[in-house]
Amino acid sequence: MIDLYTWQTPNGEKPVLMLEECGLDYRLHMIDISAGEQKTPEFLAINPNGKIPAIVDREGGEDHAVFESGAILIYLAEKTGKLLPAAGTARYETLQLTFFQVGGTGPMLGQWHHFTNAAPEKLPYAIERYKKESLRLLGVLDDRLKDRDFLAGDYSIADVVNFGWARSGLSGLKDEGADTLTHLKAWTERVGSRPAVKAAIEKLDHAKRSKQG
Amino acid sequence: MIDLYTWQTPNGEKPVLMLEECGLDYRLHMIDISAGEQKTPEFLAINPNGKIPAIVDREGGEDHAVFESGAILIYLAEKTGKLLPAAGTARYETLQLTFFQVGGTGPMLGQWHHFTNAAPEKLPYAIERYKKESLRLLGVLDDRLKDRDFLAGDYSIADVVNFGWARSGLSGLKDEGADTLTHLKAWTERVGSRPAVKAAIEKLDHAKRSKQG
Ligand SMILES: N[C@@H](CCC(=O)N[C@@H](CS)C(=O)NCC(=O)O)C(=O)O
Ligand SMILES: N[C@@H](CCC(=O)N[C@@H](CS)C(=O)NCC(=O)O)C(=O)O
Repeated sequence: MIDLYTWQTPNGEKPVLMLEECGLDYRLHMIDISAGEQKTPEFLAINPNGKIPAIVDREGGEDHAVFESGAILIYLAEKTGKLLPAAGTARYETLQLTFFQVGGTGPMLGQWHHFTNAAPEKLPYAIERYKKESLRLLGVLDDRLKDRDFLAGDYSIADVVNFGWARSGLSGLKDEGADTLTHLKAWTERVGSRPAVKAAIEKLDHAKRSKQG
Repeated sequence: MIDLYTWQTPNGEKPVLMLEECGLDYRLHMIDISAGEQKTPEFLAINPNGKIPAIVDREGGEDHAVFESGAILIYLAEKTGKLLPAAGTARYETLQLTFFQVGGTGPMLGQWHHFTNAAPEKLPYAIERYKKESLRLLGVLDDRLKDRDFLAGDYSIADVVNFGWARSGLSGLKDEGADTLTHLKAWTERVGSRPAVKAAIEKLDHAKRSKQG
């Protein structure tokens, strides 16, 4: 059994999509980051960086804790032999687009959200900076998808990892230029229609509601 | 032969450290990012995201282009069997600390540098935000190194990937609290004393000077 510690966010949903796609058994533990539960001593023992998501795999000999969504997806892909080719061009295209997400759309859209919705002062320079870079990054994905169904060969962890942030960026930046990214939009619909993705989103939604009572 | 397209920056030096450590043959192509050379059509054909570093491996059947430093390091590790354990706890600890760098210290110290040194206006809120988060992230590494020589078992791609940004953070934030991170400092000295690391830094330095004439 795998314990998953997560919350309903673009990073937090990645391992749920993956666990559902791989048909693995897991227990969902909701860590309410709006209540600071990612900074409790219990959670910091699993992820000293104090961020969701994280897993503990309790199958096999010893417990195996993994944090960082990219590492979690590689771990699950290698455990099951799914969604990450073992060698060749498709493997490294998958990995490069996984890192592109973790180092690119994740932090940049994260900063855009912060300065747009959360920061105590409105700083036009910062909002503009992250809007521009986020749109540029989403444009790189859109261009890649102009003649492909999925980001790197068959459906892979590159699609899983990019899905939530792309969806969030397309919706948040819709009136700022993201509505022209038609290939990316079609891809989010293609990914979003997968039964595993629908099941994941539903379970996360249900778990969040239950938690908040 | 491997072609490496890079520049003298914390991200740009990672593949040089790795190629030297693995003893691979490579040609160094300096892409001057201060002159915008990362946005030429030739370079965008290699990395559509327009960022260094990128490699093209011209060995074997077909040319193999890889961008994103994390993906490049995994590619080279798997090509040579070096610096990334094939399985087990050490493998996933290595991968998680690699993603931690690419999604954490890289973008956050990058933003701190931008708002401190490059932005046209001084925005105290933004400078403080990235200073605080960068120091927190460097503190996670420092804590991890309190009873270890390297980040995940033997010297690995996790050390290679974290080295440049840790050094840059320790120096840039020295008077802001980074001087208390003594385990991290000792580790940068340990890594920095490796012959492959010294050779890499020297070659990059020399190539930059030659290019700038
Ligand atoms: N690079 C990390 C990012 C994780 C992350 O940023 N998680 C956010 C939620 S989307 C979080 O836990 N935020 C709460 C906090 O930073 O205190 C990953 O891909 O796992
Ligand atoms: N996540 C990327 C980051 C690469 C990156 O940010 N490269 C910088 C230099 S350190 C760059 O090319 N900047 C120029 C630009 O963005 O135009 C990686 O790890 O390879």
